[in-house]
Amino acid sequence: MDIATRVYNHKWKIDPIVRSLIDTDFYKLLMCQSVFRNKPDTTVTFSLINRSTHVPLARLIDEGELREQLDHIRSLSLSRGESTWLRGNTFYGKRQMFRPDFMEWFEGLRLPPYHLERKGDQYELTFEGKWHEVMLWEIPALAVLMELRSRAVINSMGRFELQVLYARAMTKVWEKIERLRGIDGLTIADFGTRRRHSFLWQDWCVQAMHEGLGGKFTGTSNCLIAMHREVEAIGTNAHELPMVYSALADSDAALARAPYDVLSDWHDEHEGNLRIILPDTYGTQGFLDRAPDWLAGWTGIRIDSGDPAKGAEVAINWWQQRGEDPADKRVIFSDGLDVQQIADLHARFSSRTKVSFGWGTLLTNDFRGLVPGDALAPFSLVCKAVAANGRPTVKLSDNPEKAMGPAAEIARYKRVFGVGDQERQAVIV
Amino acid sequence: MDIATRVYNHKWKIDPIVRSLIDTDFYKLLMCQSVFRNKPDTTVTFSLINRSTHVPLARLIDEGELREQLDHIRSLSLSRGESTWLRGNTFYGKRQMFRPDFMEWFEGLRLPPYHLERKGDQYELTFEGKWHEVMLWEIPALAVLMELRSRAVINSMGRFELQVLYARAMTKVWEKIERLRGIDGLTIADFGTRRRHSFLWQDWCVQAMHEGLGGKFTGTSNCLIAMHREVEAIGTNAHELPMVYSALADSDAALARAPYDVLSDWHDEHEGNLRIILPDTYGTQGFLDRAPDWLAGWTGIRIDSGDPAKGAEVAINWWQQRGEDPADKRVIFSDGLDVQQIADLHARFSSRTKVSFGWGTLLTNDFRGLVPGDALAPFSLVCKAVAANGRPTVKLSDNPEKAMGPAAEIARYKRVFGVGDQERQAVIV
Repeated sequence: MDIATRVYNHKWKIDPIVRSLIDTDFYKLLMCQSVFRNKPDTTVTFSLINRSTHVPLARLIDEGELREQLDHIRSLSLSRGESTWLRGNTFYGKRQMFRPDFMEWFEGLRLPPYHLERKGDQYELTFEGKWHEVMLWEIPALAVLMELRSRAVINSMGRFELQVLYARAMTKVWEKIERLRGIDGLTIADFGTRRRHSFLWQDWCVQAMHEGLGGKFTGTSNCLIAMHREVEAIGTNAHELPMVYSALADSDAALARAPYDVLSDWHDEHEGNLRIILPDTYGTQGFLDRAPDWLAGWTGIRIDSGDPAKGAEVAINWWQQRGEDPADKRVIFSDGLDVQQIADLHARFSSRTKVSFGWGTLLTNDFRGLVPGDALAPFSLVCKAVAANGRPTVKLSDNPEKAMGPAAEIARYKRVFGVGDQERQAVIV
Repeated sequence: MDIATRVYNHKWKIDPIVRSLIDTDFYKLLMCQSVFRNKPDTTVTFSLINRSTHVPLARLIDEGELREQLDHIRSLSLSRGESTWLRGNTFYGKRQMFRPDFMEWFEGLRLPPYHLERKGDQYELTFEGKWHEVMLWEIPALAVLMELRSRAVINSMGRFELQVLYARAMTKVWEKIERLRGIDGLTIADFGTRRRHSFLWQDWCVQAMHEGLGGKFTGTSNCLIAMHREVEAIGTNAHELPMVYSALADSDAALARAPYDVLSDWHDEHEGNLRIILPDTYGTQGFLDRAPDWLAGWTGIRIDSGDPAKGAEVAINWWQQRGEDPADKRVIFSDGLDVQQIADLHARFSSRTKVSFGWGTLLTNDFRGLVPGDALAPFSLVCKAVAANGRPTVKLSDNPEKAMGPAAEIARYKRVFGVGDQERQAVIV
């Protein structure tokens, strides 16, 4: 390396983890545009929640370093090339997915302030402000915490240890890819931004998937990597939409309607492969039973909690009841997947419906078993909308381990949405 | 670059400037061994002195960063390979230059504490302790301050600016080397460790000299670079020896003898090209006039202050007076040299005596004119022994601008050494 390059590289005060506002999930931008249009005046609080309390984030990660990383993110703004890519690209076959008024706002955006406080061995990290602004904190905040934790563990490792660590991790990912390559008709995308080991690692994984799976690899949820590696940006919508819409509801009747209002707004904006139902926020079965008929016309359903096979059966039954042919529909599995489960689900459902997979944490952060004490194993960190216009949000999901919200509100939501006993499933990632 | 290497490189909390105890001048180690044997119980204070008060070091350099660098130096110890090189190498044609008892002590050495305090725009940086320990702070302390100042200036520069900066600096050094290449019989070494732009830059300059000058380049004063680049390590002794010996003298008579005692001790330890007189500490003319005859038998004289041509004439005359043939002797010029002066001095003296050059700051730090405000121009920073066993040291030199010590002591030394009016010369570096 020449002296000038080395001097330049060593000028960095920090090694920034997130270096772009589009180093985020594609669906965040889709939802952001929807919120920007439909709920521009909603105040929302996002909060970090470490479900894996055995990982003492505040002991592992220096508060000053965390602040430097978050401050760096606040210094970012959309670059010209990023803006051009968002404006000029085709997403899901559609040009001008992002409207000019949204793009203009996005080009001027800097992320709003954060609130950070150490509480024992954990950090309290919250973001409060306009929904469409604070929602863009979720992914970078998670990515920063995940990568700072990786760095904390890696910091005591030597040069050769590191080379072997990454050699092993690469081997592990590659062996998974080789298994997936054997599955005929597989359709799989990277959904691993939020809980990735590191940015560079996700970037490597995406390239490995691209080379190893060819056409079976449909793209990545990460916009920046999609742009750099010239692959598709993948994603639709997430729980935060029904959670916030529901929190805003003024009556039980309005609450019962809220999850459908979300999809009604979405219906107006998107078609085809972007019309994917995420039914589990307040229980899949009840949601589908009460769904208006136009929802049955949507392209597919994403299964993100509970027993995935059971969820897919429920979806298929529902389509059949509504006179739709499941063979024309798509089921997207995206909850804590690994290769064996992908193979099983594909074998079970691919002849009955279109199946695809959003592979997240166990693609981009499977460092299980690679260091002593499993200190690099992925863990369950989320960043969720916890309040909207001062009211708490609630999530029930199809797994009570993933439920969120005050107990009284959870009880009310269970009543309104007719959710009874649920089967518990361990949350790995 | 692979992920493991990048992760490894970014683990460094700081970018250490001095990474080895032998990233220092060879003569420091020679003198250290001499002091270790002859004056092991002397307590000495070294102090940083910025003669270029227009360079506001404390405003340019962050105190925390300076402490980190100095602390890092305190964490260093001699590596096995460095020890092997010192023990096994041939220096000036001699094997086992460093005695086993000295090496054993050096292998166990960690540098003693420093005292750092900001005083206005400058730093007060002192080292107090056993002479043979604190003396090893001089070169790394200077190198750290010089390079932190370079970094401070470079910090605001862009990638292309930096590439062009180094392209220009390289061109400048190379053009000097091309001029020197044309001088028949030239003998020149790198003496630029203490006031180098940066370690990597000195390393580059040494390699450029090696390639560009071939046999005319006799080596470098920097032990670490000499080891890595497989060139000769060059150097003999410096002013600190007569300064400390003189401060220890209990009477005027002992003081008058002290500079010769230094060389007597040196005479017992070294021969050949290591017997180089440094005559200017208390005035060259008087020193030589009063010198014992055995000194005239030494191999050469180093001219380090005053008008260098005049100094060389004085030396040649002295040898002739003492019945020595100047053609068998060596004059080493080492005071603020640049190519024109090297060419002139070589032309004037090379037919009358052996001439060689120790090229320092204007080899390893000639960034003059390369950035606005000349903010990277070298400046006159020294780190000197200012007290020994509680008594102040004094240096007169052949240029009153380089004099050091309390006024009353300077007056006393001038009397004892018979030094009258001296010609002032601007100190550039």
